[in-house]
Order: sequence, then structure tokens, then C-alpha cells
Amino acid sequence: MAACIFCKIIKGEIPSFKLFESEKVFAFLDIQPLSQGHALVIPKFHGEKLVDIPDEQLAECLPVAKKIAKATGAENYNILQNNGRLAHQLVDHVHFHVIPKPNQQEGLGITWPAEETNMDKLKEYFNQVKAKM
Amino acid sequence: MAACIFCKIIKGEIPSFKLFESEKVFAFLDIQPLSQGHALVIPKFHGEKLVDIPDEQLAECLPVAKKIAKATGAENYNILQNNGRLAHQLVDHVHFHVIPKPNQQEGLGITWPAEETNMDKLKEYFNQVKAKM
Repeated sequence: MAACIFCKIIKGEIPSFKLFESEKVFAFLDIQPLSQGHALVIPKFHGEKLVDIPDEQLAECLPVAKKIAKATGAENYNILQNNGRLAHQLVDHVHFHVIPKPNQQEGLGITWPAEETNMDKLKEYFNQVKAKM
Repeated sequence: MAACIFCKIIKGEIPSFKLFESEKVFAFLDIQPLSQGHALVIPKFHGEKLVDIPDEQLAECLPVAKKIAKATGAENYNILQNNGRLAHQLVDHVHFHVIPKPNQQEGLGITWPAEETNMDKLKEYFNQVKAKM
């Protein structure tokens, strides 16, 4: 994808603070961090959303995220991958954020509007979604 | 871990809406969902945080999350894995949330307190963290 900023970073056409590179995965510091150590892990394979990436291109992403989390030394941290504008995705090349959470102010802010447990509704939905797995 | 609720779910000692099971991974619907289709993917290996899980136990987690995301049919969705209380982790067994984002109200709420880009600060931190990778 000639126009993709992350593909350009992988090729070295745009410089980055590269933390890791292998045949399938590339990782670098986010230059607009939510906290110190905020990094991105991306498959080299270009795809917009998680469902667009072949399994074998995904397998190494979490081990690399783990390696980075360890290197930051963070005790609290979030791994986040957003798909679609409504879900806060801004660059259309799959990326996993590794975001240290040193305190309430810095790092990822989460709100959690959980529904009450409704077993009948869950069971009905479960039967629908299970049939599609 | 005898007391771990997710280990009990894996063993079938607590019932669940099971979506997937393999040698290394288990997935089921969250019973207090943020949106319809909210599911959890967990390694069977018990570990509290991402850094506690061996790489080979992590590799299949994203392919399974992808499979679930496809089955929900969601266009917008978040993959989230929280580590530590401050980062919103409530159960101390690593779990990946697959959370459809159908509209502004339902699904994961995100706030994004990004810092301004500061190349000097980034470069200094990069040299520190790179040495630990």
C-alpha cells in the first residue's frame, strides 16, 4: 500500500524509533504517546482490520508486545488494537498499542458501560454466534 | 490455580457460553457485556499478566480473537488486554476482550490523553528502552 504511513515506516521511508523487527513484525515508539513507553506493534502484512490479517502473520505480535512490556518495566499496562473509526482506529494498518499506565492521568483512559447479566438474552445470542464460528 | 475463576471455567467447574476451545486457548461470552458479542479469549496457561505467559501459549490468542470478531459480524471492534488494577484488570488470569463497538454508547469507551510530540524526550527514552529489549 503505497500511501500507508505504517508501510512507509516498515520500509524505512519514514524514520521511526524502531524497537524490534523480524520477518513478519515491526515495532516502534508512538510519537504522540499516552505515556512514556507507549509503543506500536504491527504486522508487516498490510491489512486494515484484524480480520484482514492471515493467522500466521498475527502469531508473533503478542510475543513482541510482551517483550516491549517487559522492557518498559511497567507494572500496569494495556494492550489495545482498534478496528474502525468508531472504535478509535486512526491509521488503517493493523497496530497493537502497548500502553504503560503509570497513574490515573497518563496512559489509556477506559470507560466500561457494562450491561447487567441477562442469561436469556445471552443464550439466544450465543446460539446465533456459535453457529458462525 | 485452584481459586482462579477462569481456570474453573476452563475445567468446566463453572459453566460458560463456550465459543472455542483448543489445546492452548479457551473463549467464551462475557456475561456482563459492554455490547452484544463481547467475548473473552484466554490462554489455558494460568498467568496474571501478559509478561507471565510463555510465547507459545500466546500465539493462538489473536487468531481466535479474529475468528470471534468475524463471527460477530462487527464492523467496528476493539481488542483489549488489561494488566494490573490501575489498567482496569479485574480477574488475574490473562484475558483478551473482543468488544464490538456498534455505536457511541455501547462497547468500549476510550479517552486518549496524547502528549505533544517531543523528539528530544522520545530519543532519550528510546535509548533507555532499546537497551532493555
